[in-house]
Amino acid sequence: MKHLLSTKGLARPDAIRLLDIAEDMADVANREVKKLPTLRGKTVVNLFFEDSTRTRISFEAAAKRLSADVINFSAKGSSVSKGESLKDTAQTLAAMGADGVVIRHPASGAPEVLAASGWIDAGIINAGDGTHEHPTQALLDAFTIRRRLHGPASRGKGLDGVTVTIVGDVLHSRVARSNLWLLTTLGAGVTFVAPPTLLPMDMSGWPAAVGFDLDAAIAAKPDVIMMLRIQAERMNAAFFPNSREYSRRWGLDDERFARLGPTSIVMHPGPMNRGLEISSAAADSAASTVLEQVANGVSVRMAALYLLMSGDREDS
Amino acid sequence: MKHLLSTKGLARPDAIRLLDIAEDMADVANREVKKLPTLRGKTVVNLFFEDSTRTRISFEAAAKRLSADVINFSAKGSSVSKGESLKDTAQTLAAMGADGVVIRHPASGAPEVLAASGWIDAGIINAGDGTHEHPTQALLDAFTIRRRLHGPASRGKGLDGVTVTIVGDVLHSRVARSNLWLLTTLGAGVTFVAPPTLLPMDMSGWPAAVGFDLDAAIAAKPDVIMMLRIQAERMNAAFFPNSREYSRRWGLDDERFARLGPTSIVMHPGPMNRGLEISSAAADSAASTVLEQVANGVSVRMAALYLLMSGDREDS
Amino acid sequence: MKHLLSTKGLARPDAIRLLDIAEDMADVANREVKKLPTLRGKTVVNLFFEDSTRTRISFEAAAKRLSADVINFSAKGSSVSKGESLKDTAQTLAAMGADGVVIRHPASGAPEVLAASGWIDAGIINAGDGTHEHPTQALLDAFTIRRRLHGPASRGKGLDGVTVTIVGDVLHSRVARSNLWLLTTLGAGVTFVAPPTLLPMDMSGWPAAVGFDLDAAIAAKPDVIMMLRIQAERMNAAFFPNSREYSRRWGLDDERFARLGPTSIVMHPGPMNRGLEISSAAADSAASTVLEQVANGVSVRMAALYLLMSGDREDS
Repeated sequence: MKHLLSTKGLARPDAIRLLDIAEDMADVANREVKKLPTLRGKTVVNLFFEDSTRTRISFEAAAKRLSADVINFSAKGSSVSKGESLKDTAQTLAAMGADGVVIRHPASGAPEVLAASGWIDAGIINAGDGTHEHPTQALLDAFTIRRRLHGPASRGKGLDGVTVTIVGDVLHSRVARSNLWLLTTLGAGVTFVAPPTLLPMDMSGWPAAVGFDLDAAIAAKPDVIMMLRIQAERMNAAFFPNSREYSRRWGLDDERFARLGPTSIVMHPGPMNRGLEISSAAADSAASTVLEQVANGVSVRMAALYLLMSGDREDS
Repeated sequence: MKHLLSTKGLARPDAIRLLDIAEDMADVANREVKKLPTLRGKTVVNLFFEDSTRTRISFEAAAKRLSADVINFSAKGSSVSKGESLKDTAQTLAAMGADGVVIRHPASGAPEVLAASGWIDAGIINAGDGTHEHPTQALLDAFTIRRRLHGPASRGKGLDGVTVTIVGDVLHSRVARSNLWLLTTLGAGVTFVAPPTLLPMDMSGWPAAVGFDLDAAIAAKPDVIMMLRIQAERMNAAFFPNSREYSRRWGLDDERFARLGPTSIVMHPGPMNRGLEISSAAADSAASTVLEQVANGVSVRMAALYLLMSGDREDS
Repeated sequence: MKHLLSTKGLARPDAIRLLDIAEDMADVANREVKKLPTLRGKTVVNLFFEDSTRTRISFEAAAKRLSADVINFSAKGSSVSKGESLKDTAQTLAAMGADGVVIRHPASGAPEVLAASGWIDAGIINAGDGTHEHPTQALLDAFTIRRRLHGPASRGKGLDGVTVTIVGDVLHSRVARSNLWLLTTLGAGVTFVAPPTLLPMDMSGWPAAVGFDLDAAIAAKPDVIMMLRIQAERMNAAFFPNSREYSRRWGLDDERFARLGPTSIVMHPGPMNRGLEISSAAADSAASTVLEQVANGVSVRMAALYLLMSGDREDS
């Protein structure tokens, strides 16, 4: 694997291989010394054009557990904010010897531009680009579902036949998109449930069912229900008078949570708006994987950094 | 020791044990390679809800000398600033594998909430919470006094019979509070000298003498005089017309400094307002421990991190 | 070498020694594990009173490749921004055990004040002070020219007889000043080409030729042409109506670039204003050393950190 830019083009064997390596990485977290020497002498640059403390520190923890050096490059206050081009920034990082670049960018497609450009030879990981993709989020979600279903026997398996309902602001969500492509590649069936104003106009080619009734979706007892984060400013754009109204129609409140199947999994990419798209009872329940998702995020990111930055990089 | 949240509850033997370990850590600073492998593979998160470069880099230096990985998490620009709860932040850090959390928070009691919550299993160190406590500051102050009095023979000793006068804005000072509890636990006698408007309304239960005349306090020749930092906006709230007036009545100026006893120690937690609460002659004199306090801060924080994060953590 | 504050006082043998060590450091970049244990247990503080992500991460990468611990201290939001003196900041860093301090400061001379003060025993590296000096930039420029001219046979050599034309805002440029002193010390001849309004009033004692016609300067076929970064706000101060006008008279556009000699080198300290002081064709040409400069920056900074912080520091 040379780069990790999206889940759309990710072949099933590559995805499963990455999840399997993440299983190995998860084992490291249980060791006395949670460090591997794998990436010693390698440099990972966190190139963040948008603030995201959670994602940045997850990658930082992952890189440090692999003994890489980490340099945080926030575009704020840098020459980038004074108009330096992505090209010049990338070539600068390349010249400084960056072996891996984790990029978050407000423009959809920026990581692909970077990877395709030849400006930099480093492995590129997309940590979220516009409304396009957030592949490590989808990989950690898939990892989490697989572990819940199969436990220690997860290695090598996909998600065939698993039903996943994704609820909320699909229109702006790179998490929803990355999950759609990855989960369906792994054999799961995905249903989006959202207000019509928070769905893309054109979903042709998307292998997703669509629903507009959360209660009906819950009655279908999906294996997984994934609540997306709603952002206040977008709620208004969706013509909801207020958050209570949004919550009433599209939130996983206590009452809806009680109607889920006994083995259903409740997921959320975080940070949660408790009481808005998800109730605290649901978020903190045994059905919830919210914290497993965070922990698995480190393992999945370790696996991605390993695949892109260790000697094996060019193999596949 | 599981957490270090305050000095109020700290038992004398635990305090002395921490100071003794800090003595060992201070020795490390004189080695060719100033690093111990003790916390290799452990992760310390500096979780700062208020800016404090000095305190943050002191903890960062301490953690790195113990070979821990350090992740800086400033709440600014993070999901925390968008309203994420302390609970969700804490659980996120736990899930990412934080072994220690150094927290600074504007709300008094936030570190105790964190430690008592069960949200995170990591060792919690209070790096300053509201006007409540700043225990590592008090510990480094006690360490500094003990070293000045006993030199290399400090180990095992308390501060019995030492007289400490603390001058200035006691009302808002977590440093004053943490010192009061710790110094009296160690056997010292503490006197607060402050404008009435900068003292708490209710000091019942505080084992401190109170005075309103700095010159009288100096005439009593205390072993230690500790000047607190005054903040301009609070000076106004105390009805002082200007800083010159404050300095005239409550500052350790050259003239007052000259009247201190020949063995008196002058302390300040830093950063100093030179010419306001302390004159440059006093700050830079041989009596001043201002820089020893900074150096000892790293040793004391190494000791605290060691006690909370090494294998011995559960012992006490 | 105790400090690296300027190139003005740098003796030729010391400069060549530093460049030769940088050659050794450049070799490290080609190793499987790009790390040397040289500065293990040492702490480098990046003390930045001005934002400069590029320079900061170059020093950070250099320090980490030498296995030093790096602590980033941005003056923004710190007690420094609340008026703490440079003296107190420096003494604080000293007390915390900083072995090296990389300082960027808006005031010309601040690093020299720091080094001469005795406030701190650490090795001080000037990473840019006001309009005064930026010595590591000049050293990386000299290193880059020497490598282009002599390749692997560079060690021990100066730049005798090399002609260097530096173009643009000389008035405000610490890069121009540091290069002037270093390049002439190494035997090169330097010509400044600039609008009269962007030259210092008094250049007596400067070993530079001055010209006001870029086309004439190019007709002289210098070995090296170095374009300085122009800042929009200063362009106005120089009475240029707009950037197009500046570019027309003082920019290295495609047409001028074509008239350079076949072996001429095109340099720029970055970040570039493409289309303003330099065209993209020139910047991306084989003649351009822009990216070599960035890569060599890490090697030169490794050499400087090594000379100032390893055991050999006091030797010279």
